[in-house]
Amino acid sequence: MRPVSLSLVWTFCLHLLCFCAAEEGLEFPNFDGKDRVLDINEHSYKKALRSFELLCVFYHQPLPTSKGLQKRFQMTELVLELSAQVLEDKDIGFGMVDSEKDAKVAKKLGLEEVGSLYVFKDQRIIEFDGQLSADTLVEFLLDVLEEPVEVINNAMELRAFERMEEDIRLIGYFKGEDLYYKAFQEASERFQPYIKFFAIFDKSVAKHLSLKMNQVHFFEPFMEEAAVLPGRALSEMDIVDFVKQHRRATLRKLRAENMFETWEDHMDGIHIVAFAEEEDPDGYEFLEILKDVARDNTNNPDLSIIWIDPDDFPLLTTYWEKTFKLDLFRPQIGVVNVTDADSVWLDMSDDEDLPTAEELEDWIEDVLSGRVNTEDDDDDDDDDDDDAALDDHHLTHDDDDDDDDY
Amino acid sequence: MRPVSLSLVWTFCLHLLCFCAAEEGLEFPNFDGKDRVLDINEHSYKKALRSFELLCVFYHQPLPTSKGLQKRFQMTELVLELSAQVLEDKDIGFGMVDSEKDAKVAKKLGLEEVGSLYVFKDQRIIEFDGQLSADTLVEFLLDVLEEPVEVINNAMELRAFERMEEDIRLIGYFKGEDLYYKAFQEASERFQPYIKFFAIFDKSVAKHLSLKMNQVHFFEPFMEEAAVLPGRALSEMDIVDFVKQHRRATLRKLRAENMFETWEDHMDGIHIVAFAEEEDPDGYEFLEILKDVARDNTNNPDLSIIWIDPDDFPLLTTYWEKTFKLDLFRPQIGVVNVTDADSVWLDMSDDEDLPTAEELEDWIEDVLSGRVNTEDDDDDDDDDDDDAALDDHHLTHDDDDDDDDY
Repeated sequence: MRPVSLSLVWTFCLHLLCFCAAEEGLEFPNFDGKDRVLDINEHSYKKALRSFELLCVFYHQPLPTSKGLQKRFQMTELVLELSAQVLEDKDIGFGMVDSEKDAKVAKKLGLEEVGSLYVFKDQRIIEFDGQLSADTLVEFLLDVLEEPVEVINNAMELRAFERMEEDIRLIGYFKGEDLYYKAFQEASERFQPYIKFFAIFDKSVAKHLSLKMNQVHFFEPFMEEAAVLPGRALSEMDIVDFVKQHRRATLRKLRAENMFETWEDHMDGIHIVAFAEEEDPDGYEFLEILKDVARDNTNNPDLSIIWIDPDDFPLLTTYWEKTFKLDLFRPQIGVVNVTDADSVWLDMSDDEDLPTAEELEDWIEDVLSGRVNTEDDDDDDDDDDDDAALDDHHLTHDDDDDDDDY
Repeated sequence: MRPVSLSLVWTFCLHLLCFCAAEEGLEFPNFDGKDRVLDINEHSYKKALRSFELLCVFYHQPLPTSKGLQKRFQMTELVLELSAQVLEDKDIGFGMVDSEKDAKVAKKLGLEEVGSLYVFKDQRIIEFDGQLSADTLVEFLLDVLEEPVEVINNAMELRAFERMEEDIRLIGYFKGEDLYYKAFQEASERFQPYIKFFAIFDKSVAKHLSLKMNQVHFFEPFMEEAAVLPGRALSEMDIVDFVKQHRRATLRKLRAENMFETWEDHMDGIHIVAFAEEEDPDGYEFLEILKDVARDNTNNPDLSIIWIDPDDFPLLTTYWEKTFKLDLFRPQIGVVNVTDADSVWLDMSDDEDLPTAEELEDWIEDVLSGRVNTEDDDDDDDDDDDDAALDDHHLTHDDDDDDDDY
């Protein structure tokens, strides 16, 4: 297990600098220059898997020949090295697998998507397809280290559970750590850390949720009512199948930890995207309307709205504004074609007057039926009024000639 | 205004790589290699101030001679260059002022702390003393661009306002954009973006908060009751003075945007620090107890607890665990000496049994009276039981010999 040698070994931090010399207690880590990321190959992979509680493997294309791409590659290595350094005491190993040189190992390990990171924990494999920055990766790995099932002990902790409306959550009531609980726990391991699992062992706490013994509730994000899993002595596969079937939520928040995976999971090449800053009064109000719409349409399998809070992605905000021709200081909703980033947006420029849930539902119906789409007026940008659907819904269109190299 | 030349011009992104080639719409910016950060000196500073809506100036020490520090410096330049690129269309300029070479300009501009970033907006100067990463800086600058006063138009927006319990907020009820509103607005500009200002022009909305015409309420973070500013025809200075006097909250959250400023604002070299993950049931419960304590002691000027959510600082989590000898998967509270990072922590290792608000208040009293402190047992680490205060409060102590170079 020879460490991957870094042709560029810098003894400084990546993007975090602390300028406060006087006080102690807030020191961001600097990369110390020590190589920790392993070269995973046929000879080393078994030992690597055995040696760590978690093994985090970056599955990459062969080292590119172009200078620019090589530097990108080195930056990725640095993200992994810094993460490895920060997590050194947590028994987390890091390695790299070359998709050509190590094709056999990749197959044995079950690596599929080049450019993804795979985490091995016990016998399981977890894909990380999120923002490849040290912050996001370290947070993700710390989450994977935690117990996959959290126990809810009292009414206060139940309030914490109820506040996590952005997450897909399952909660079960069990007598103790019996067979049924074990099945629940094993199911939880398959979805960690993306889907959260909670257990209650206390009758009075279970009563708050009207949970019966050995019953499991499934909460879709932003829904007030839980779906009850059919049956009460559930096997691991009962739970796994139910989750797989209900995983794509009617309203789902874009998160750094799996943003690319979410974006890839489009509906026929299209996403309905809503931008709303939750911290902003306007954004909050719009989000509440969106939640109403999602609750009314939770049983529509064709509808999945991606909510993006621009506050979570400061570096993408101006890119989105440019690509979609939007003002993101205000809430927005539109349809985005993921193959060319062409888009159509609902006109909500009247500050005082966000659409009602009904108006939004009408517009969404037009989107789903194809009456509103990103292709219609590609040739007549200045001719919006000719289109009946546009009359009703005040659509704004981004231009198609946005070849800006951003 | 010659751009600061980057001796290392890399045409790749800093720490953000997108590996999803197939779908469009989520492309993180790569630094394009174009120098945008200006060299601010006696000849150029006036023009720079005139040319942009915001001018963001990094006040730095002369280029260091050591290789390691030089690379750090270059990374800082890259953070600024990437931010400048991302914000190019927002009319935000970036510059650097050398504390030796440009000492005169620094004085004219009112730059004080070397290593800080200063933002010039209209005639005002705003200090940024937070995490110097592109994400944090860009988010901060986008906040500074927004209107400093947000208008609350209806009950739904008022709910958004009420949810922002982590922020210091002021809210006033005005007839319209009259003299009193203008005074409020001018006061708001002095604290933007750290302290949030809201205005109501609608009688029925004001009634929800029992706000009288031209009255201003001040909300300390996590407090349910507002403080009413004395008087009803308030001048800008009335408001400014009140905010300055009440700015240090009883319970305040550490945020990336001003983390070093917060950390420097200690009480005689000491911080009471609480770690709690709000997303975690245990952490949430502990935080609710902390809020109770803060509400009970809001009038104690000697008490200010810093709440750190480890989720907000993934790269610091293991550093804190090492420095303070803590397990941050669980809530923690302790006293930290900021001059040497020595610390004492309340023992809460019994999983089921967080301290009550009363027990926490007793412990805090012991801290404030000096009975619990970071110096007491520096010489007798193994002798905790001799100390009466420790008997009561199950203190755990970190060792003093932690010279680990992290």
